Amino acid sequence: MSIDTVAVALGERSYDIHVGAGVLENAGAYLAPLLQRPRVIVVTDKHVEAAQASRLKSGLDAHRIDHKFITLPPGEQTKSFSVLENLTGALLDMNVERNDIVVAFGGGVIGDLTGFACAILRRGCRFVQAPTTLLAQVDSAVGGKTAINVPHGKNLIGAFHQPEMVLADVKALDTLPARELRAGYAEVIKYGLIDDLAFYEWLGANAEKLFTATGVAERQIAVKKSCQAKAALVAKDEKEHGARALLNLGHTFGHALEGIFGYSDKLLHGEAVALGMILAFEYSVRLGICPKEDAERIKSHIITCGLPASFADLKADPVPADKLVTLMMQDKKREAGKMTLILAKGIGEALIFKDADTDDIFEFLKEKTA
Amino acid sequence: MSIDTVAVALGERSYDIHVGAGVLENAGAYLAPLLQRPRVIVVTDKHVEAAQASRLKSGLDAHRIDHKFITLPPGEQTKSFSVLENLTGALLDMNVERNDIVVAFGGGVIGDLTGFACAILRRGCRFVQAPTTLLAQVDSAVGGKTAINVPHGKNLIGAFHQPEMVLADVKALDTLPARELRAGYAEVIKYGLIDDLAFYEWLGANAEKLFTATGVAERQIAVKKSCQAKAALVAKDEKEHGARALLNLGHTFGHALEGIFGYSDKLLHGEAVALGMILAFEYSVRLGICPKEDAERIKSHIITCGLPASFADLKADPVPADKLVTLMMQDKKREAGKMTLILAKGIGEALIFKDADTDDIFEFLKEKTA
Repeated sequence: MSIDTVAVALGERSYDIHVGAGVLENAGAYLAPLLQRPRVIVVTDKHVEAAQASRLKSGLDAHRIDHKFITLPPGEQTKSFSVLENLTGALLDMNVERNDIVVAFGGGVIGDLTGFACAILRRGCRFVQAPTTLLAQVDSAVGGKTAINVPHGKNLIGAFHQPEMVLADVKALDTLPARELRAGYAEVIKYGLIDDLAFYEWLGANAEKLFTATGVAERQIAVKKSCQAKAALVAKDEKEHGARALLNLGHTFGHALEGIFGYSDKLLHGEAVALGMILAFEYSVRLGICPKEDAERIKSHIITCGLPASFADLKADPVPADKLVTLMMQDKKREAGKMTLILAKGIGEALIFKDADTDDIFEFLKEKTA
Repeated sequence: MSIDTVAVALGERSYDIHVGAGVLENAGAYLAPLLQRPRVIVVTDKHVEAAQASRLKSGLDAHRIDHKFITLPPGEQTKSFSVLENLTGALLDMNVERNDIVVAFGGGVIGDLTGFACAILRRGCRFVQAPTTLLAQVDSAVGGKTAINVPHGKNLIGAFHQPEMVLADVKALDTLPARELRAGYAEVIKYGLIDDLAFYEWLGANAEKLFTATGVAERQIAVKKSCQAKAALVAKDEKEHGARALLNLGHTFGHALEGIFGYSDKLLHGEAVALGMILAFEYSVRLGICPKEDAERIKSHIITCGLPASFADLKADPVPADKLVTLMMQDKKREAGKMTLILAKGIGEALIFKDADTDDIFEFLKEKTA
């Protein structure tokens, strides 16, 4: 099957996303034209190294590109100040220069952390995203947002730093745990919900195929369509002064939910976003701007996909609504103390809602968490 | 005396530098138009707080701008990963948002660290430089370079992040220790050496006045001229792909010298740059591209100004030439393993010299350090 290429149009920071099966075995051919000297540093985690590194290595060896691997522990805890300090130290130990290429090979944690390390190493060195999870392929590896987490919240310390290229091999999803695949799918649904009803309907008909390894063609379509949607919003508004904020649909609620669980694997990011999107639609219904049927339709699809669709699904102690609101207040979109939410007029019609009433959100969450 | 304003032309990132005596007492008037809500967070160090904070506070109070101070320990050790983590944490504790203004009130350490903290806080929040040392007023507070130090070298982790405004009050120099004033003066000489022979000659005639508190008018001229020179190079080449590198005259040698002394106050940055500029000129003479008289003339002026002009002046154990070269190799300007130096054809005629011969530099430094 052929490889799709999606362009991210950002002037001198423009780059291509290559999507398909076998991209990793051809990584050398994609990377060679970018290199000033034939070597790359690959940052990955233990799981990805065990499952996928041989494919990337053979792709690099085929073009005689020297490669050194830095392997980090898997998990959200890796997106920390201390690992950032160690990673930048390791890159300096290897004499990485501004024009060298560092490859972020893994999921969102590896991509966000490595991208941020490259953003600040010698005030900016080049890097390539090679995402191996569905979440990273359709979302975090595209668009240049990089970050680490701090006790105050997720992704609160970071930078905008665009990669030189994205290599999204859908075959890498074959070794991804089923739960992570489903969590990543939440971000795919998001693109339909934001502004593409037709894509949402295609997903409704094809979601189950995406969850099986034989659904390679469907996976490629889903990743390509998601990247196209994200690329269009990023090209319009790189630094999120406007339309790009739509990509945060479900994320202000979602990040707060993750905060409750300490950003642990008790609740994956995509799972939090799934419930967060439902809450965004249900809150839109409460405000009278969205038909109730649309919120119910989404909820039903998310349940079908095995993702959490209510607080009861979280199988946790009762979630305190006041703590959720406090966590939501740390959102980066806040302006002059006021909260901004991404809400919707319906499926495919998301909107930026400024100056949200925190008291009303608290009441809404009290009902939902009861 | 009136205030001078120097514009830094960087499109949507353009800003003004206000230079003069009494800028701090008028800080509220300058800052008010920038603020979305009437509060600023001021980051400073203990020495500056004791010597100058009352002036800034009265300027803010006069315009009813609320202010909270974060006071850090003075010294280069503050430009570290651990202080960065604590500072960003403190700013998040204070709920600093992207559109708030953080004021970096101090010398190069406070400006570089605070600017970097703001560059990465929520992926970028606004800040203002209020430099209180000569070095910061003529160099580090202008142009958007921010950074911390790591064991591998100085300023190796950082970002380009332009301030919203620079408030350079030359009266703040009255409480600056004489040694720091002289060290900062090295960066003033630099602008003459790069491309302005007339300014260099003006400095030769006026340097002693700059070193006395009565030389307010001369200080204002020196700071204004330096800011104009730097603004012109930054506007031409914000991210240092070309001409901006000229500002590193004396810095590749200088950073290596600082490394030998562990970035301690045994050798101040400006002192290292003073000797570094002499070495750059002497190395230019060795290559046959610069008249010997120009190198001697600079050396004589630097001696007159009480700055180190030879390795003997460092009053240290013999400096190992091989260690200097190793430290020089960590320079951010390195490309594909090759060193770039800023050299000169004469006073006012600096140039970018790529692909410098490290063996020859080693021989040169062996002679100089003998």
